[in-house]
Amino acid sequence: MSVTGPAGFRAAGIAAGIKSGGARDLALVVNDGPEQAAAGVFTTNKVKAAPVLWSQQVLQERSLRAVVLNSGCANACTGPEGFQDTHATAERAAELLDTGAIGVAVCSTGLIGERIPMQALLPGLDVAVQQLEGTEQSGLDAATAVLTTDTRAKQSLREHGSGFSIGGFAKGAGMLAPNMATMLSVLTTDALVDGDQLDAALRAASRTTFDRLDVDGGTSTNDTVLLLASGASGVRPDPAEFTAELTAACHDLVRALQDDSEGATKTIDITVRGAVREDDAVAIARTIAEDNLVKTAMFGSDPNWGRIAMALGRVDAEIDVQQLEIATNGVTLFAGGTQSRDRSEADLSDRHIDIVVDLHLGDVEATVLSTDLSHAYVEENSAYSS
Amino acid sequence: MSVTGPAGFRAAGIAAGIKSGGARDLALVVNDGPEQAAAGVFTTNKVKAAPVLWSQQVLQERSLRAVVLNSGCANACTGPEGFQDTHATAERAAELLDTGAIGVAVCSTGLIGERIPMQALLPGLDVAVQQLEGTEQSGLDAATAVLTTDTRAKQSLREHGSGFSIGGFAKGAGMLAPNMATMLSVLTTDALVDGDQLDAALRAASRTTFDRLDVDGGTSTNDTVLLLASGASGVRPDPAEFTAELTAACHDLVRALQDDSEGATKTIDITVRGAVREDDAVAIARTIAEDNLVKTAMFGSDPNWGRIAMALGRVDAEIDVQQLEIATNGVTLFAGGTQSRDRSEADLSDRHIDIVVDLHLGDVEATVLSTDLSHAYVEENSAYSS
Repeated sequence: MSVTGPAGFRAAGIAAGIKSGGARDLALVVNDGPEQAAAGVFTTNKVKAAPVLWSQQVLQERSLRAVVLNSGCANACTGPEGFQDTHATAERAAELLDTGAIGVAVCSTGLIGERIPMQALLPGLDVAVQQLEGTEQSGLDAATAVLTTDTRAKQSLREHGSGFSIGGFAKGAGMLAPNMATMLSVLTTDALVDGDQLDAALRAASRTTFDRLDVDGGTSTNDTVLLLASGASGVRPDPAEFTAELTAACHDLVRALQDDSEGATKTIDITVRGAVREDDAVAIARTIAEDNLVKTAMFGSDPNWGRIAMALGRVDAEIDVQQLEIATNGVTLFAGGTQSRDRSEADLSDRHIDIVVDLHLGDVEATVLSTDLSHAYVEENSAYSS
Repeated sequence: MSVTGPAGFRAAGIAAGIKSGGARDLALVVNDGPEQAAAGVFTTNKVKAAPVLWSQQVLQERSLRAVVLNSGCANACTGPEGFQDTHATAERAAELLDTGAIGVAVCSTGLIGERIPMQALLPGLDVAVQQLEGTEQSGLDAATAVLTTDTRAKQSLREHGSGFSIGGFAKGAGMLAPNMATMLSVLTTDALVDGDQLDAALRAASRTTFDRLDVDGGTSTNDTVLLLASGASGVRPDPAEFTAELTAACHDLVRALQDDSEGATKTIDITVRGAVREDDAVAIARTIAEDNLVKTAMFGSDPNWGRIAMALGRVDAEIDVQQLEIATNGVTLFAGGTQSRDRSEADLSDRHIDIVVDLHLGDVEATVLSTDLSHAYVEENSAYSS
């Protein structure tokens, strides 16, 4: 279950013919209320796709009736004509749902630089509206229709004891990185939460989930996370409890993104603790996450802590080599300025690897989720124009 | 010809048994004067190997009699014992050359975290001193003894019309990146140049050569470039002419490093022009150089400009998407906010690829040299603890 789990939501996912090959490529998520509060966070990339520019604009109202999502085309770097295409998409969906275009966000993912085939998309919207349902299957169809190189749908449903729930789906397999984790995600909730609260909760949740996934440093032109609240449960949650539940749902999705990222043979959690400032901890973890020499060593199940030391040493953050400790899978290999255990004592043969760096300077910690750099990553990204 | 090209220098490169397998692994370069001016630039990594700490210290005098270099062990992350090993190396070389240890720089390259086998290195120094010669072969032997995963020696010799010359060698195949291009290099000159002038010239030359090579972002723990001046030509060059000639010699070495970097099937020059500030141009070029999605596309000979647009959009620099132009191998694929030519018109099948980004905001330009991300890179770096 995902976006159709919480009360008040319907979804659909169909094959509109945007992708060649007949796979599902158009999704629609509709909030039937009674409330229509919404919030969004978007890519920090300066090159923003048309749907990002559009959705940022409509989100200023902190209200959404619906979200249209397509795969097969990012509609990025497509000039004013590309923006017109996004606008026409929102207009058509709004007309079909008897609302205003300002209530419709649009998300696109796929190849950058190509115009979107509107002759497929617009008729597809008619079909999608007719297929809208609040079922588990329709939520899965929507989650499936946004996939690109992903191998499976990624969904979450969290039901809180106080009577509200949060559901969501996400897509993302490549271009996965800082400040929005290069992907699309739609989350829904039947809690009674106004737009400003939603916005604060979504920013807080993203900061420690979507923003902490870093597969290849590639913040995309299209990254978008949207959160829609119907209020249909009638439950007005404690703000801290709501944020915690939302963070848990986002974390589910980020774990699924990490596990399914392009060519990954290893999932790697990089925790930096003992920092004075959170920014330092995140910067160090992110640099290790993006370092190709660390990533290829992990692909080879090689606890090559020297490369981890090299990577963290190039970060503009406070480090004292004498205090520094580096551990892989629980075995501390570097401490006191030198090797403390032989690398052969750390077994990295499992699919999951934990890297822990302890700076011993303060009490702040942060974790960034990443993957290895494998032959399959090279193969997929050299052969596929995406 | 390399370091033994300029008058006043002798070199040797021998197999001391630091590496297993019997390859050359210990090099010595000696300045017989009459002058012994010297300068050095070093890694910006906060985790510095023992030989870097030592050489930075002795270089404060701006004078060197000799440089000892070894491959097979980086002597990095080896604690105070590692520093003692470097010190003992300099002491032994100084004794054999009848000088003080403060006149001997040390450079090491190889695996991080392992102690250097001094029982091989110290006797090797005796042999190296006996084999010192000013011949072409001895220069090549020294250039060969510093190699790790490099497939060939990298040398340069520049002879200036005014009567002085500059020679040099470099090693580096992986961990090649910003702010010292992760490698070792020794340059020699018979020009009459004092230490302060040498230092200024070396910093200026490095800034646009060694600092502009970026293969994988991996600034190493050991990066060192040393420049020794014997004054044996008796020629006191114009400072600007000397810097230009030195820059040319450094550029020769950087081109050779680019061409021989681990697993490279493409050499890629990324030029960013039309910038307001040089820092912006370099930051954008470097981000494109390090982007795995760009690098894998280049491996696939795919002119996927959308990935270049994505990469540059994540840089903290001024960009106007409407003004931006992106060209690969001379074909402008993106202009005016949208695709300007079909990507099939740009042929990237040759080994060398030029990426040119024109920001159209100012008149500053910078070029960063890089390579693609290939299966061979993944293979070499997942199988080799380095």
